[in-house]
Amino acid sequence: MSARVEVVSESTDDGPAGPVVERRFDLIVGEQRVPGIQWLPVGDAPCPTVCIGHGGFQHKRIDNVLALGQMLAGGVGIGAVALDAIEHGERASDREASKRALRELASGDREAFRRHFGKDAIATMRARAKLHVAEWRAMLDALQGDPRTAGGPFGWWGVSMGTTHGLPVVAGDDRISAAVFGLNALRPGDEEFAADAAAVTVPVLFLNQWDDELMTRETSLALWDALGSKDKTMHVNPGRHVEVPRFERDASVEFFARHLLPAPR
Amino acid sequence: MSARVEVVSESTDDGPAGPVVERRFDLIVGEQRVPGIQWLPVGDAPCPTVCIGHGGFQHKRIDNVLALGQMLAGGVGIGAVALDAIEHGERASDREASKRALRELASGDREAFRRHFGKDAIATMRARAKLHVAEWRAMLDALQGDPRTAGGPFGWWGVSMGTTHGLPVVAGDDRISAAVFGLNALRPGDEEFAADAAAVTVPVLFLNQWDDELMTRETSLALWDALGSKDKTMHVNPGRHVEVPRFERDASVEFFARHLLPAPR
Repeated sequence: MSARVEVVSESTDDGPAGPVVERRFDLIVGEQRVPGIQWLPVGDAPCPTVCIGHGGFQHKRIDNVLALGQMLAGGVGIGAVALDAIEHGERASDREASKRALRELASGDREAFRRHFGKDAIATMRARAKLHVAEWRAMLDALQGDPRTAGGPFGWWGVSMGTTHGLPVVAGDDRISAAVFGLNALRPGDEEFAADAAAVTVPVLFLNQWDDELMTRETSLALWDALGSKDKTMHVNPGRHVEVPRFERDASVEFFARHLLPAPR
Repeated sequence: MSARVEVVSESTDDGPAGPVVERRFDLIVGEQRVPGIQWLPVGDAPCPTVCIGHGGFQHKRIDNVLALGQMLAGGVGIGAVALDAIEHGERASDREASKRALRELASGDREAFRRHFGKDAIATMRARAKLHVAEWRAMLDALQGDPRTAGGPFGWWGVSMGTTHGLPVVAGDDRISAAVFGLNALRPGDEEFAADAAAVTVPVLFLNQWDDELMTRETSLALWDALGSKDKTMHVNPGRHVEVPRFERDASVEFFARHLLPAPR
């Protein structure tokens, strides 16, 4: 798919781990205009890139995505990009509904979870995923067309809906060489997701919340088991879907530093 | 219990993360003389200490214990001590038998696993644990008597037999404020171990091998579930009992740096 990037604005900000260049861009894919953010280390040196897929009802610059992008670029010299998923962020037809949903989910309202992540909602999410995966492939094409990021390597970070999107991206594209997944499940009979998981062979860090309202322990362990990677590690913490501990962000940064940066001598 | 330390020798060596002071000592507890090693950062500054409990058939200075001690002391400024467990290392009545057992276990010989870690072997290990736990408490007394280490804080690192010993140490001694456990299981009916696990309330990192020959997934998850700590993280990797990935040593060092060192400003 032909793809190009139009830079909307660029600034250098102080992140939690050091200064970071933040670039607001639109990815133009055919008729689509997909809003995105890129975080880059200061300077001109080539750098790896982590593609960040945000969660359901979130957007390209939500707190945890922003913090991860800033820590990668400002802390260890790895760039990052995030896109608004279909019907999310600037692409949402009802932004107030997304904000309301996020508040309900954060409060641990189990009824809201069933409403927002029930069977129909997941079917809609998966149908949109097919389109959004193509946008991510176009994003990788565009990164390969920019001298600073062309050489890769590339990683994927995305939990919850970020795994719904990322699993098929990583399964079908050998440009991604390390991935963080999690907060997602393999339900009995879901052969398409099982096949995607089996096709993932790159090193994986899998984040699992032991008291996740959205899935049983069995179905989340089933997704972990289904991953084809020999080099895979699962980090399990007590708590609900939205309660992944802060230190797992550091673990993600260390995981990418280990797999995307040259080994120290 | 009255306890004192007799230093046998001391040297400064280059470790993988920087120079490290290594002190060979004997801990004198009543009639007992327990051989130990202490790793310390170079200099005189007070430092935290991690107590390292080695695995079955191993000893106080086996490769992985030595590497962890050196990385803690040379890399992040945390001291460490290791003791020979009863009938291990210099205290073994048949050292050749231990070496033979380690070779058999490393080769993945399932029959050897059943022989060395069968019901009788585990009963013997648990009986000795009661005595060895008292030695570790004496070790903590001695550390509190040395101005350099007196202020703590103290941690525990020990998987497999190191958890058999460490769980009762940490459960019954509020001087330990963070612990790495793993490669161990809670079997149905083992109420004593369950009670020890429930009494552990400090932050825990739990290492779990998904294809461990010594236990089922259910019994290792049961031990993880039984831990009383609210702040606990389990790292699961594919592979056998002796195949814990190298990067989990880094994760242990990071865990202790997070819990035993002052927070960065």
